[in-house]
Amino acid sequence: MSRPNLHVALIHHPVVSKNGEIIASAVTNLDLHDIARTAKTYGVCSFYVVTPLEDQAELVGKIVAHWVTGLGGDYNPSRREALLLIRHKASYAEVLDDIRQQENAEPITVATSAKAKPPLLSFEKLKGLLDKGTPTVLALGTAWGLAETFMDASDHVLEPVTGGTDYNHLPVRSAAAIILDRVLGNR
Amino acid sequence: MSRPNLHVALIHHPVVSKNGEIIASAVTNLDLHDIARTAKTYGVCSFYVVTPLEDQAELVGKIVAHWVTGLGGDYNPSRREALLLIRHKASYAEVLDDIRQQENAEPITVATSAKAKPPLLSFEKLKGLLDKGTPTVLALGTAWGLAETFMDASDHVLEPVTGGTDYNHLPVRSAAAIILDRVLGNR
Repeated sequence: MSRPNLHVALIHHPVVSKNGEIIASAVTNLDLHDIARTAKTYGVCSFYVVTPLEDQAELVGKIVAHWVTGLGGDYNPSRREALLLIRHKASYAEVLDDIRQQENAEPITVATSAKAKPPLLSFEKLKGLLDKGTPTVLALGTAWGLAETFMDASDHVLEPVTGGTDYNHLPVRSAAAIILDRVLGNR
Repeated sequence: MSRPNLHVALIHHPVVSKNGEIIASAVTNLDLHDIARTAKTYGVCSFYVVTPLEDQAELVGKIVAHWVTGLGGDYNPSRREALLLIRHKASYAEVLDDIRQQENAEPITVATSAKAKPPLLSFEKLKGLLDKGTPTVLALGTAWGLAETFMDASDHVLEPVTGGTDYNHLPVRSAAAIILDRVLGNR
């Protein structure tokens, strides 16, 4: 299998709070580790951590530095390998610019949501895009999910992950793992 | 779809350390939250947290109490629902006893490992067992994975999750999500 042309972006703004307000959420250390390790497992090209907040961007830098060039990487080299995928960007526009420059092509943008309304992109269709080698970026929302304006501005919204119950409160770390497995896993 | 007769057990002993020694690992707060939320999403019957260490068992009790009967549950009722699945047991033998009592049947034990050697149970076969309603317990290892003695004593070892690369360092939280989706997800 050739490497999928898939990029993952973890969005901290614009996302919604528990009360439905647009916020910039805090960066969670374990989101970075877990999603980087899963992305590395599935051969994802890059893992963008998107936050406009300078102190949060600094935190991302410190975490990555500890594991890539610092003591963490000596202790656990496989963690270094995973965290090398992380790139901080202040906005989604900067993510798209970065991909354009790398790929020399316009990426297809796919938003995710636990409560997405049709029209939705099926996992099968997303798999099809990736099989064709189309540069694609998958945006994951933190807090209570991506803002509606963000989803409206995306080319597609992916169908939600469901598990046969009416409980739909997966952690973003777990949703990321399931989505990558569904579209890139060998099964 | 009827409710799957699947139980998940997160094992903190006997597991192996980075250096291959048998240890009892520390309980990680986010393992409890993430795996409980994923288990609830997929309709899993119970989520056992297995540790023989009293201080770690106390920690499990405190985390669950905060979210089930304490302030956490008022703040976030869906988190309460998920953490209600958690039961602490001091050993895997106690887990199996508990399932026997609930189900009036002997559960099939399935161990997981990123480096499992044949004979392995395929995801398809595990799905088949669950479709038949067989009570089944899936054991997940913390730290550097389940001890070999633990795997040898299990009825089956599940085939490892792979992502089309040679990197196989998924967090247990993400591996749990992928495995539950592969055997219980609607696709």
